[in-house]
Amino acid sequence: MQILDKPDEAAKSEHEGKKNPQQSALIQLSEKPSREQLNNTFRKKVPDGTEAANVLVGEVDFLDQPFAAFIRLREAAVLGSLTEVALTSRFIFILLGPRNQTKIYHEIGRAIATLLTDELFRKVAYKAMNKDELKAGIDDFLDEVAVLPPGKWDPTVRIQPPKFLPSAQRRRLMLQRESKSHCNTKAHEAHEEERLAHGHPHVSEELLKTKKCFGGLVKDVRRKAPWYWSDFYDALNIQCFSAILYIYMATATNAITFGGMLGDATDNMMGVLENFIGTGICGGLFCLFSGQPLTILSSTGPVLVFEKLLYTFSKDYGLEYLEFRLWVGLWIVFFCLILVATNAAYLVQYFTRFTEESFCALISCIFIYDALKKMLNLADQFPVNWRYSINNVTLYNCKCVLLGNGNESSSNLSSYDSYYHLNPQEYFNWTQNQCMELGGHLQGNDCNYVPDIFLMSVILFFGTFVSTMLLKGFQTSRYLSASIRRLTGDFSVIMTIIVFCALDVICGLQTPKLIVPNEFKPTNPNRGWFVFPFGGNPWWVCLLSAVPALLITILLFMDQQITAVILNRKEYKLKKGAGLHLDFFCITLLIIVMSFMGLPWYVSATVISLAHMNSLKMETTVSAPGEQPKFLGIREQRVTGLAVFILTGASVFLSPVLKYIPMPVLYGIFLQMGVAALGSIQFLERLKLLFIPPKHQPDLIYLRHVPLRKVHLFTLIQIICLIILWILKSTVAAIIFPLMLLALVGIRKAMECVFSLHDLRWLDDILQKAVSEEEPKMEEIDSSDSEDSELKYQEKVPEINISVN
Amino acid sequence: MQILDKPDEAAKSEHEGKKNPQQSALIQLSEKPSREQLNNTFRKKVPDGTEAANVLVGEVDFLDQPFAAFIRLREAAVLGSLTEVALTSRFIFILLGPRNQTKIYHEIGRAIATLLTDELFRKVAYKAMNKDELKAGIDDFLDEVAVLPPGKWDPTVRIQPPKFLPSAQRRRLMLQRESKSHCNTKAHEAHEEERLAHGHPHVSEELLKTKKCFGGLVKDVRRKAPWYWSDFYDALNIQCFSAILYIYMATATNAITFGGMLGDATDNMMGVLENFIGTGICGGLFCLFSGQPLTILSSTGPVLVFEKLLYTFSKDYGLEYLEFRLWVGLWIVFFCLILVATNAAYLVQYFTRFTEESFCALISCIFIYDALKKMLNLADQFPVNWRYSINNVTLYNCKCVLLGNGNESSSNLSSYDSYYHLNPQEYFNWTQNQCMELGGHLQGNDCNYVPDIFLMSVILFFGTFVSTMLLKGFQTSRYLSASIRRLTGDFSVIMTIIVFCALDVICGLQTPKLIVPNEFKPTNPNRGWFVFPFGGNPWWVCLLSAVPALLITILLFMDQQITAVILNRKEYKLKKGAGLHLDFFCITLLIIVMSFMGLPWYVSATVISLAHMNSLKMETTVSAPGEQPKFLGIREQRVTGLAVFILTGASVFLSPVLKYIPMPVLYGIFLQMGVAALGSIQFLERLKLLFIPPKHQPDLIYLRHVPLRKVHLFTLIQIICLIILWILKSTVAAIIFPLMLLALVGIRKAMECVFSLHDLRWLDDILQKAVSEEEPKMEEIDSSDSEDSELKYQEKVPEINISVN
Repeated sequence: MQILDKPDEAAKSEHEGKKNPQQSALIQLSEKPSREQLNNTFRKKVPDGTEAANVLVGEVDFLDQPFAAFIRLREAAVLGSLTEVALTSRFIFILLGPRNQTKIYHEIGRAIATLLTDELFRKVAYKAMNKDELKAGIDDFLDEVAVLPPGKWDPTVRIQPPKFLPSAQRRRLMLQRESKSHCNTKAHEAHEEERLAHGHPHVSEELLKTKKCFGGLVKDVRRKAPWYWSDFYDALNIQCFSAILYIYMATATNAITFGGMLGDATDNMMGVLENFIGTGICGGLFCLFSGQPLTILSSTGPVLVFEKLLYTFSKDYGLEYLEFRLWVGLWIVFFCLILVATNAAYLVQYFTRFTEESFCALISCIFIYDALKKMLNLADQFPVNWRYSINNVTLYNCKCVLLGNGNESSSNLSSYDSYYHLNPQEYFNWTQNQCMELGGHLQGNDCNYVPDIFLMSVILFFGTFVSTMLLKGFQTSRYLSASIRRLTGDFSVIMTIIVFCALDVICGLQTPKLIVPNEFKPTNPNRGWFVFPFGGNPWWVCLLSAVPALLITILLFMDQQITAVILNRKEYKLKKGAGLHLDFFCITLLIIVMSFMGLPWYVSATVISLAHMNSLKMETTVSAPGEQPKFLGIREQRVTGLAVFILTGASVFLSPVLKYIPMPVLYGIFLQMGVAALGSIQFLERLKLLFIPPKHQPDLIYLRHVPLRKVHLFTLIQIICLIILWILKSTVAAIIFPLMLLALVGIRKAMECVFSLHDLRWLDDILQKAVSEEEPKMEEIDSSDSEDSELKYQEKVPEINISVN
Repeated sequence: MQILDKPDEAAKSEHEGKKNPQQSALIQLSEKPSREQLNNTFRKKVPDGTEAANVLVGEVDFLDQPFAAFIRLREAAVLGSLTEVALTSRFIFILLGPRNQTKIYHEIGRAIATLLTDELFRKVAYKAMNKDELKAGIDDFLDEVAVLPPGKWDPTVRIQPPKFLPSAQRRRLMLQRESKSHCNTKAHEAHEEERLAHGHPHVSEELLKTKKCFGGLVKDVRRKAPWYWSDFYDALNIQCFSAILYIYMATATNAITFGGMLGDATDNMMGVLENFIGTGICGGLFCLFSGQPLTILSSTGPVLVFEKLLYTFSKDYGLEYLEFRLWVGLWIVFFCLILVATNAAYLVQYFTRFTEESFCALISCIFIYDALKKMLNLADQFPVNWRYSINNVTLYNCKCVLLGNGNESSSNLSSYDSYYHLNPQEYFNWTQNQCMELGGHLQGNDCNYVPDIFLMSVILFFGTFVSTMLLKGFQTSRYLSASIRRLTGDFSVIMTIIVFCALDVICGLQTPKLIVPNEFKPTNPNRGWFVFPFGGNPWWVCLLSAVPALLITILLFMDQQITAVILNRKEYKLKKGAGLHLDFFCITLLIIVMSFMGLPWYVSATVISLAHMNSLKMETTVSAPGEQPKFLGIREQRVTGLAVFILTGASVFLSPVLKYIPMPVLYGIFLQMGVAALGSIQFLERLKLLFIPPKHQPDLIYLRHVPLRKVHLFTLIQIICLIILWILKSTVAAIIFPLMLLALVGIRKAMECVFSLHDLRWLDDILQKAVSEEEPKMEEIDSSDSEDSELKYQEKVPEINISVN
């Protein structure tokens, strides 16, 4: 019988010394560890308190039949340089026998070594009082052993672990039942550990309903306060630096694009500069005082739509916009405070994966769509002459023509002439700007075209997208050392931006660049930095404002809380917990400030916040040989966010550096962020399943528990919801968008008629979050419903006829 | 004990019926197969002659202790609808026992079923005369079984098959030794099968040294003749159609680019048209009569260099070029015929993987380099005005200026005026061509620039490359059905070309297009279609020609034979064999024709031929559930090659269609071909190894047998050789290039001082070709040196101390 010990190799090595046969025969038992032992780097990988077992087999002349001994030392002792690594030895197994049987002894030795890799057998070995107990331990081991039949074996096939494994926990319990003595506390610990692994500890703790007014808020503050200082010194890592640059780029781009749109929508009452300052103030304060400082605040699409509606309304009815908006803001604050006081955030437990993912998918699609749309808009800004003919190069021209055949503006012309001291031949060599100043216009078949710039932008856009994706992919490749790979992954976005900026500078084309305002004054000269609540509008406007405020409140609440739930997903392994009530309270207070200053309102931005978290992932640095680095959690701190928003606020002074960054590069980063956010949700996984024939399906946990038909149905419903949301968002019906988000929760409830609770629990449950690669799938089955899954496994083995005659 | 039966599931299902317990209890034993059985589509997957084994377990009230029976029927019989699929049953196992033990019975049933999946146990079961023989069979089975210890098991880890498996062959031999009776013929067959699997049967057969004059050629003809007609009807497959289009594109592009370079090198004595006609004639005849019709003939870089040297020489000494070249050609034929007569092709056995791969890597690098270089050359052809400023649009112009301020050419001008009936205002609206006709020249700061076209070309180039790679990758993805994926893979290149041509047409920019000559006349009007051997040069030139001819002969021989060896690699599983002597004989005869017609000489083109073979890969269409489709071989036939070359010859008439294909798209295809050819060799795999830390190394067969240090050294030597070859090829030393190829063989010999024969056997041996995925690695170890590898495996298990006290 041959023993495959691969899965436990690491564990096993901890408990055994290694030695070449020739060497060990020569070595004297010395008290002190040899130099060779101390130099062995494997020592680092071995946990403290590890003891060695030595398995020694050999053949001798003086024996007629084999002789075996299994020795347990009363106290673990250093047996000189017997072990390869300097460890104390506890067990020694010796097998000696007559010659010519070496191979068999070897196999027995391997079997004993493998036995000792088993957790339960080790327990037995430590406690056994006589030979029979040891034998019983071996029998127990053999009972649980898995057997692979010999024969033809396709070497390209790797064996999947069995769907149902003998649960170590259950075996342990069996053992404990047998010897009900010391292990009580340990069992309790194990149980606790299990509970933590499966529940959603932080969120569920937060979501305990309190009847006290502001009870949730108070609890949030109490829970977060002890972490406050660690939120600053936890940021001491190079990773944070790259995260700051990356997220700053995204925030600045976002501020510019939303600022531009806001300027369009409100006739520059609020423009790019207002958006920069607002983002800086709100984001900075939020990072300092919020419950979840990893959140990145930003203008969001739905809020923008409402701003537009408000402005149109106030213009149509001759109201003073900013004053009207201030009152809307104050009503929003009122409603929001009611929500905080009543601890409404506990409602997020009704946001299941279905709601979350639909929202996240929608926002991601908007990101991708916007990136592509802005890219295509460049074609209008820099039109390409697609019909350009090389042969006709002499026929293309563009000249400055002065109004009215040049005669009427002769006075203007002569003044200009004297101003610039031009001689008559140069009249027609005016540049476009000079021509416009003179009131002239451009005439010619080449005036409307700009060569090369659009196509260069396309190259920069796709180049940025592809190389960011490739660099991120490099992180999970097998090349180079883990630290270099991690660094590449962390800095992938920054490196890409730098490379493509350099490419752009080298080429020298006038591609559109990131231009941030460099003067500190309101975009619209008719407004100041403070809005007075009275004076502009009649008194009833103050009351009327409550109606739009109610809708916006719903929107802000949904937008904020869904994002918060997405960020606090279990798979991110957050240690410092969330603060849903506190976050919303911060948002509320900031709305007061913003309303009085006439700046936009901000909530959490899903996609950028996700990118922020992903850029702060921590992984184990030291791992046993062959082991993959494990995801440890997110570097939870307030510094990165704070720095990002300080930079955003100070962007006014950074324009000399920022002006080298081409917009297409930033659009490429947007596209990548949208794709990455879309890729992080289970919805996409299920979408792919629709196109995968059953026999190639990946081994996903919910596919073992839910019929494929139901999974597909669930996905299709989600797609339909997404399409409806998309249509609503794009048309005038955008005003009922917040209600649609509520409707999502209703649809989820309605689905309970179609799907069994069991199915929904696997597909869509706040507690049963996407099982990421980092989490052992097996444990979930083992503990939470081992009986259940065992049954399933039995059902899935149809190879045997069972018939009762 | 739990049995993992995953790897053999397919085999097992063949031998068992499946039935739900409830159903089978109700079913009566009827003589005819039920409708349900006949409808079962699984029937298709089961080989003919399969017999079923029925394992029946159950619990009954009337028994006190379990009762088991293992029944073998004298004749296999249809047991009504007992089996799920309509098969005859041979074995029945029945286990009945008292209640409350169902689960144990179940496990026993599974164990028996697993036993029957084992090939050797089945043999025992068919032959066993009594209970003891059956028990001995079970014991044999258990001896070879692999055991997985229980316990913690990281579910993300798939278990690798053990490095050393009990060889089925050895087990079979053991069995045969025991019962030395019927199986003699079978053992012989098995041995033969094994020999075929490990040798290089066709090549080695060809390479048997014959002392007869033209002995190899005669043998080649004899061996290939029986396949001749099948070479035509084997081509009836849609795949061939896509292959024809794909390879035609490559060949036509190659003909144009090499034709253009040849035209430059020889002052248009041989140009694009000559190259098209030459490729068509040579390729077509070669495909009809050669030993390996999958080979694609083409001009190659080294030959081009020699043509250039010949032309320069004849110009410098005032010789008649084509006549001189004819004599060189005749000498080449003379030398080549000597090589054929002496069966020199048997020398290819000294071309090991080292030689082959260095050559293939060099040619692939040239492809990649050329594709990129041609792409960058477009920047010279269509210069971009990198300093273009949008503001200065009015300052750019380009006008036609007539020589000498326009006055001197007034006569010319007036005649032009009357010719075109232009009115005076339009004088300056001449196009570039009109201006040139009039003897004018262009003046202006915009004349030297062409907008958009270069950048559009860059987009088309990278777009083509990326989408071809993605579509090829889709073939191995999990989406959609296998047939759709195969179709996508086969047509990936054609689809990409069509899509990007469409994109180009829609955009409408004047990107450079594929322009093939559309008139049938020599490029240089001073030459005809036949070269006379005498008259132009003094008599001694005929003798002098022997010197360059000798060098070119070495080059042609090396180039042709190395490519032939690469194409006949074992991993392509060619069934019809190669014909190295015959191929070279064909090449020789074609050189006579080409020399007399004054057309270029052709040899096999490595990269295009590889692309040709890859586009003709066959895979199993029907495979058992869960099984991956297997690579069956190449669709070996003469039709695709023939069609490609007929199309190439007829390209003169296809120009209305071909003119829509932009050159950058074809360059993109070239890049992809180079990358694909580079990716197919083990050298790249070893190159990657240099950057992979040992713990992430893939499980490559040679890494198990050769120390990593040696593998790296081998790779480094190869890199150095490659660099030297590259430098030689690019400088004037190109003339000694053929000798360098010979030197490669010498370097390989010299390496035997550094590497042990054992190492070289694994890294570099003509018999030990790259182990592709399709080949079971395990078998190679098992048979060729099972003792050896077993030893290795033992050495690799360092976990056990062996010490003799």
